This record gives sequence, C-alpha cells and structure tokens, in this order.
Amino acid sequence: MSTVVMHNVVSLDGFIADADDQVGPLFDWYSNGDQEIDTVVTSTVSKESADYVSSMMAGVGALVVGRHVFDMTNGWEGKPPTGDHVVVVSHRPKPVGWHPEAPFHFVDDVADAVRRAGELAGERNVAIAAGDVGGQAFALGLVDEVAMDVVPVVFGSGKRYFGSVDAQHLLEDPHTVIQGRRVLHLRYRVRRQPAADGR
Amino acid sequence: MSTVVMHNVVSLDGFIADADDQVGPLFDWYSNGDQEIDTVVTSTVSKESADYVSSMMAGVGALVVGRHVFDMTNGWEGKPPTGDHVVVVSHRPKPVGWHPEAPFHFVDDVADAVRRAGELAGERNVAIAAGDVGGQAFALGLVDEVAMDVVPVVFGSGKRYFGSVDAQHLLEDPHTVIQGRRVLHLRYRVRRQPAADGR
Repeated sequence: MSTVVMHNVVSLDGFIADADDQVGPLFDWYSNGDQEIDTVVTSTVSKESADYVSSMMAGVGALVVGRHVFDMTNGWEGKPPTGDHVVVVSHRPKPVGWHPEAPFHFVDDVADAVRRAGELAGERNVAIAAGDVGGQAFALGLVDEVAMDVVPVVFGSGKRYFGSVDAQHLLEDPHTVIQGRRVLHLRYRVRRQPAADGR
Repeated sequence: MSTVVMHNVVSLDGFIADADDQVGPLFDWYSNGDQEIDTVVTSTVSKESADYVSSMMAGVGALVVGRHVFDMTNGWEGKPPTGDHVVVVSHRPKPVGWHPEAPFHFVDDVADAVRRAGELAGERNVAIAAGDVGGQAFALGLVDEVAMDVVPVVFGSGKRYFGSVDAQHLLEDPHTVIQGRRVLHLRYRVRRQPAADGR
C-alpha cells in the first residue's frame, strides 16, 4: 500500500500563495544554496534541504494535483515534476492534442484520483498537492502524512494549505524536523486512533 | 531595551482557539509529562518543554493582553500569570473594586500598552499574547520575536495567532526549534531589514 503524503511550501500562518496565486518569498529557498536538486527546473538549495527533498522525491510514484495547478503550469509540458504519473482532479477531460503520450490521468473525483494514483504508484508513495485538492482528501481521511516546508514569512491572507478543511484533526508528533536555510521541513503522520492518555 | 515577544499555543494551521474560544487539544501538552512548572496552575510537562517554558517565563517582566483574555480569566484573580505586571489593552477602565492592589494596568491603545509594559519590564522581556492584540502590535512593527508552541492538530477555523494581520512580513530563520511531547516550540526574530541575497 502506498503512503499518501500531502505536501506544499507554506507560510508560518498556513498559506501556500496569496489570493492571486503569487508565492512571494515562499520559493526563495529553492535557489539560496549550493546543492543542486533536479526539480522541475534545477534548484540549488542548502545541504539540509537537498538531502530531505531528494529523499522525499525519490519515494514518490504518482502525484495528485488539481486542475488549477495543471492549468497554471500547462501540466509541466507533460513531464511529471515528481514520480512517473500525474493524476489531475478535474471535471473536464485532458485537453485535446495536449502531449498525447504524457503519463497524465484525468479523474473527476478526489477519492477516485487518490485510488488511481495508488495503483499507478505501486510500492511507492502518492504525493498530493496541499490546498483545495489536498484539503479535500485530508477531510475524507485519505491522507496518511502531512509534509510542510514552512517558510519564515507571514502572509496574512491567501490560499490555505489545508484548503477548506473545517473540523479538528489530530496528527502525531512530527517524525521529521529539519531546518534548512529559509525553510523548516516538517512531516507528521495523521493520527488514526485517539490516544487515551493525551500523549 | 526590552525584547517584545509575541506568544501563544497554536494549531498547525495557525489558530489559537476555535470561534467559541475553546482550545480543544491545544493545552494537552501542559499535563502530559512529569516535570512540574509553575504556571497559573501547576503544569506537568515533558522535560524538553519544562526547560524551554521555564527559561522563557523567567525572562518576562511584563505581559500585555487584551480585555477579552482579562475578562475570560477574571485577570487571573490579580496574580500575573508570568512576569510582575500585566498591561491590559482596553477602552474600559479597571473594574471598580477588582483586586485594588493587583499590578494590572489598563491602557486603551496597543502601542501605548507595549511602551508601558517596556517601562514596567525594565531589563526583562515584554510578552504579548498572540491573537487580536498581538497581531495589532505585530502589524505596527512593535514585535521583536514570535514564539509559537505548535500543537499537532488542525483546527480548520477559529481565532488566528496573527489576528487581523493582512500583509506579508518576513521573519528570520527560527533560533529555537525544540520538540516536546505534543508540542513543537518555535521562536523567530522578526526581520527588520530585507536581505539582498534571499538568505
């Protein structure tokens, strides 16, 4: 079974972009170091971030994103930014003529998208973009882990990491706490059973 | 000069309470360990949290809170929960007959309240409660450090740590990252000058 990991870069107050989808200083850490990592574009990050991000990306088999991200990036021109497959949650089909051979799959329901990504990922993890789509999956109990790259900036308003989640959910203590340069990498397992002793 | 530290316990998505002022599991860590600390009531926390909280509390000379917190706690019956003085931001005066000797000072403006607390604190720090009042001071540039006790819970909605702040503000990388039991203690200096090189 794949582990489903919700991920995004996030401000200290929980926003992944401003209301106009601008990330401001949230992505500065992707270019403030001297260690190259092969993301969509080549990034140069601190040693601590390089080790963490490379390991995390290597574990991903399939990525779930919303149609909004797909449209903004034009689907990374058909090349998955991480993993071998991308599942796009969308009520509209794949655009006609758009990179016909690209390993992109269009599914109109979040739960179905996570299931399909799990099949495609095999033994590897499913990554799901935090925000609207990730928040829906989280609210449905489909997310196993929450990965936040916390940047030391306050946004005040914008698009939320947890999307439209509007109920309390407990997580475990973070099993990963790594301080990079201008980013703090945190990773939590979602708590499945409440602990009786408050621990 | 005192350092002004904004502080509160906060959910992973930035809330200090739900819409009805209920803290839910946010305060569980105050009673899940075996180290006693002398807060308003005696708390028993993990060793890591005890060391951090005790040191932080010892450094505080005066505390700034809003009238809402004062009313909810009845001003801790006149005994400052930390430091020697409490400055209450309120348009209404001290209640008649309420603990006449208590070192509680009522000031009707946030900036004046922080200034008064600085005078009262002397060489020690000013703590200011995050939320509405802390957020106002933060937006005015009056906060030097942001201290967050991050609990692994998602709230979805409620009262925000940064109150009504609605503009981007950069902080330094955290100089404190301490993992307790069911709480991650983070402390950031507010950035006064933007760095030219994105670091």
